Amino acid sequence: MPHNGQDWRSIAGTKRNSLLASISLAWRFREDEVPPPMRLKDVTAFITRFLTPLEQQITDATVPSILENIQSFNWSAVEVARAFCHRAALAHQLTRCLSEVFFEEAIQRAEELDTILRTTGRTVGPLHGLPVSLKDRFHVKDIDSACGYVSWIGNCKSKEDEGILVQRLRQAGAVLFVKSNVPMSMLIGETTNNIIGSTINPYNRSLSAGGACGGEAALLALKGSPIGWGTDIAGSIRIPCAFTNLYGIRPSFGRLSATGLADNLPGLPTAASVIGPMTPDLDSLSLLMRWAIGLNAWQDDHLVVDIPWKEDVFTSTRNRISQPGRSNGSLVFAVMGCDNEVFPHPPVQRAMAMVTAALTQRGYEVIDWKPPPHCPAADVLFQILGSTAGHSVRLAVQASGEPPVPQLTDLFSNDSSPLPTSEFWKLCAWRERYQAQYHEYWKSTRQLTTCKRLVDGVILPVAPHAAPPEGSFKYYAYSAIPNVLDYSAGTVPVTFADRFVDHEVYQYVPMNDRDRANWRLYDKDLFDGSPVGVQIMGQRFQEEKVLAMMAAVRDALQQYLPA
Amino acid sequence: MPHNGQDWRSIAGTKRNSLLASISLAWRFREDEVPPPMRLKDVTAFITRFLTPLEQQITDATVPSILENIQSFNWSAVEVARAFCHRAALAHQLTRCLSEVFFEEAIQRAEELDTILRTTGRTVGPLHGLPVSLKDRFHVKDIDSACGYVSWIGNCKSKEDEGILVQRLRQAGAVLFVKSNVPMSMLIGETTNNIIGSTINPYNRSLSAGGACGGEAALLALKGSPIGWGTDIAGSIRIPCAFTNLYGIRPSFGRLSATGLADNLPGLPTAASVIGPMTPDLDSLSLLMRWAIGLNAWQDDHLVVDIPWKEDVFTSTRNRISQPGRSNGSLVFAVMGCDNEVFPHPPVQRAMAMVTAALTQRGYEVIDWKPPPHCPAADVLFQILGSTAGHSVRLAVQASGEPPVPQLTDLFSNDSSPLPTSEFWKLCAWRERYQAQYHEYWKSTRQLTTCKRLVDGVILPVAPHAAPPEGSFKYYAYSAIPNVLDYSAGTVPVTFADRFVDHEVYQYVPMNDRDRANWRLYDKDLFDGSPVGVQIMGQRFQEEKVLAMMAAVRDALQQYLPA
Repeated sequence: MPHNGQDWRSIAGTKRNSLLASISLAWRFREDEVPPPMRLKDVTAFITRFLTPLEQQITDATVPSILENIQSFNWSAVEVARAFCHRAALAHQLTRCLSEVFFEEAIQRAEELDTILRTTGRTVGPLHGLPVSLKDRFHVKDIDSACGYVSWIGNCKSKEDEGILVQRLRQAGAVLFVKSNVPMSMLIGETTNNIIGSTINPYNRSLSAGGACGGEAALLALKGSPIGWGTDIAGSIRIPCAFTNLYGIRPSFGRLSATGLADNLPGLPTAASVIGPMTPDLDSLSLLMRWAIGLNAWQDDHLVVDIPWKEDVFTSTRNRISQPGRSNGSLVFAVMGCDNEVFPHPPVQRAMAMVTAALTQRGYEVIDWKPPPHCPAADVLFQILGSTAGHSVRLAVQASGEPPVPQLTDLFSNDSSPLPTSEFWKLCAWRERYQAQYHEYWKSTRQLTTCKRLVDGVILPVAPHAAPPEGSFKYYAYSAIPNVLDYSAGTVPVTFADRFVDHEVYQYVPMNDRDRANWRLYDKDLFDGSPVGVQIMGQRFQEEKVLAMMAAVRDALQQYLPA
Repeated sequence: MPHNGQDWRSIAGTKRNSLLASISLAWRFREDEVPPPMRLKDVTAFITRFLTPLEQQITDATVPSILENIQSFNWSAVEVARAFCHRAALAHQLTRCLSEVFFEEAIQRAEELDTILRTTGRTVGPLHGLPVSLKDRFHVKDIDSACGYVSWIGNCKSKEDEGILVQRLRQAGAVLFVKSNVPMSMLIGETTNNIIGSTINPYNRSLSAGGACGGEAALLALKGSPIGWGTDIAGSIRIPCAFTNLYGIRPSFGRLSATGLADNLPGLPTAASVIGPMTPDLDSLSLLMRWAIGLNAWQDDHLVVDIPWKEDVFTSTRNRISQPGRSNGSLVFAVMGCDNEVFPHPPVQRAMAMVTAALTQRGYEVIDWKPPPHCPAADVLFQILGSTAGHSVRLAVQASGEPPVPQLTDLFSNDSSPLPTSEFWKLCAWRERYQAQYHEYWKSTRQLTTCKRLVDGVILPVAPHAAPPEGSFKYYAYSAIPNVLDYSAGTVPVTFADRFVDHEVYQYVPMNDRDRANWRLYDKDLFDGSPVGVQIMGQRFQEEKVLAMMAAVRDALQQYLPA
């Protein structure tokens, strides 16, 4: 760390300013150009005013469309890169979503790619010219991975630090151009730190973008990137996706390679984080997952399991998407609107009801999901993650003298000592029994469905609220359950909180303290405009099936006619 | 435990005697019938004197042959069951290899199977009538899983305790008839406890059968069972296989379901034990592995990874078995005769030299294996396994008041306290880095081979000695390395220690204390007749490839002509 004796404020300030400085003046907002949140909550349309028509066309395109347009010489890679750099720069000024920008390198790489395609007629790889953004945890050559710790600033990564995903993205012709903001500790469902500050929600700037991939989510929601990569240990991909109208997926551990990441839980032997893509549209998500699984990264990473992309499973699941007049053999869903511990707010209830109605209308069998209780299992997961009492987190914070962000007050105020290993093993044993019980419950659904088939996917909230105001994300049991189980789970956008539709329920009697706290948080005016997504959970290593089921839910919602 | 106040000696004695009592008098040796070890070291031929010709024919048959003979009505399932019960009863009296016998239930089940086949013309399943033995850890209805702990005696298991393997064996028509002896703690490379005593080596009764599956190994070596199932956490399948002339395989974690096992490391979140088959011949081993992987147990066990049996990999690897005059494209092997920490005894060196020469003669490329040092990695594995300081082992021993077996003296004399979880995570992080380094080394072999292909399999000793006298197994780094790496590894029998061929090397200068202790152990007369096997290690989840490579080594050895 080259900051001997320097005050953390000055180190953080320098970093923050250098980020802004690397955005050209032409792309900066004038001070009076952005209305305050009170006058303009939602900036997702606002941002387009500052783009040329071509920039807008490019940045609104899906990944397949971008790739096609570059390959057919409609757009140059440079045009594409520049358009996304511009929009990302605007997005950052609106939401503080970025942690690193490297526009020059990106445009230079795009120039190379254009030259290669022009002179050889061939693309470098399947992602030729595709801009790709990364959560700050992914190491990139010559760039910091500060991850919200002042003490980690100024420790540029080398070529050797880059993980398999980054290496393969480069080889495939992707153009890396930004890294996105994360919360201090990377373990919070919001995104705030003492360097960049808090990433806010582009749909409602009074609210958080969620976390830990909140920077990535705000960027993608503003279409400052066509696809980003995040990591997920208890919902870090799915929470911000659900809060910003995005698609995202948490694969099972070992399906994708997660090397080359900044990490503050080194050695965690179970329930470790996984990587996954986040996108504004589902086709882009599926394309990237097919590509990433197809890398056969097990040859380079001993932690990756040799399970190739199962096109047959993807296709056969898609073939079970119900068609009008032909619902026989179609997918079977279960829904869980409430985990019996914390009742979701009205916008989330409405989203769940919409999905249930849309699926039923489309001819799917939908049953209630009554699994072993989620909440104690999520608590055990957090005890596992916290069993060293945040040792590395404390070290990383204290090294610079910066104060912990308010969300970490509990971690820092408790003088809890690390668990003895025997207690840690007990937690692991508890989780393993829970996983077995859950698996048994899933198996039992063959007896519970009318069609006598197993439930294919489970639909549940990602959080008991839509994107909340910063400082209020407290309850992780909805998002953490796929991590407890190591199940694959994706999020699908459903609706937006609406002050005119979602009414406050005054007579609700809370089930417990957590429920009370959550219920008190709801305010129809405050949440107005906040996106609501749900998650579709499959079993372990069922990524292809989950992607196809996400399409089933998306399609059903698109054609849903409220009664 | 229904032993309130009873002395452990009396509980153990009752158990030991009831085991013997369930062997019919006709199958018992007279007191003077078995010559003492000094006069008859090797009882593998001796045992056949007590069998009828048909019993001998049946018990000498391989699994495929047994299944065929039953299906074609040459042998009834009862004849087969009775023959193996008889031979197992004799084997136990010669080596103390069993912990439980249930001959009556077995013969009754065989009668049912015969009736079904006779009346319907159809078998119950692919293992119709096959006797199968189990390590004591596998729970079986109405049977104890004492596992060498007096305090665990008298705790009969229920139908619900049976794991997936046992359930599926029953469904497939297998006939369970015995469980086999294990060492107290199940974590020793020998097999001894205060209930059954020590399982001795049928090839040389002055030596140990190895462990922890020493009971299973002695039983199979005496052909008291055609196939047995064991578990392996640091060599428990491979050590006794190598010491008793058997084939065995340690699959990667998650390839086979390991439910329904007695366990004294509950909650261990990494490096946990796996199950695997052990057999006198390789065709039987391959048949059982193909069957077990084909169970698709992931539907019933969330810890099993959905990787079906890869017939294409098995076949394509077999097609790369070198043929005379056609070695192009054949498999590439690496050999590691010594791990630079403990030098193997002359019989093991000779076995390694034989394999290397046989493979080279057959036209395979064979290179030297120089990986990241094995010994520190094995030490870390044992620190991981021991990080709760044997908490459950102590409890299980102390509950009855029995003394620990001498091999556990260290565990009980050290007043080491359990590690804090942060230290445990450091061990896990160390192991993960080591796995990555090893994986990189394996990848680098493309540059090291003449053919510029990757090494397919690595051949190394299972222990630095052949089957040793009891109390002298100390060094686990050879057997534990596949567990450190979670690689698949199988053992192939090679030769026998031979006092006339394996000379003592007097001028050897030991590399360190462990090496000195091992070297001092060697005595050409003592070890004479002790089997020596080697292991073939593939990468993670390469079970099909390892089985095919085992065939390559076996075939090369069979046709090997010493120069």
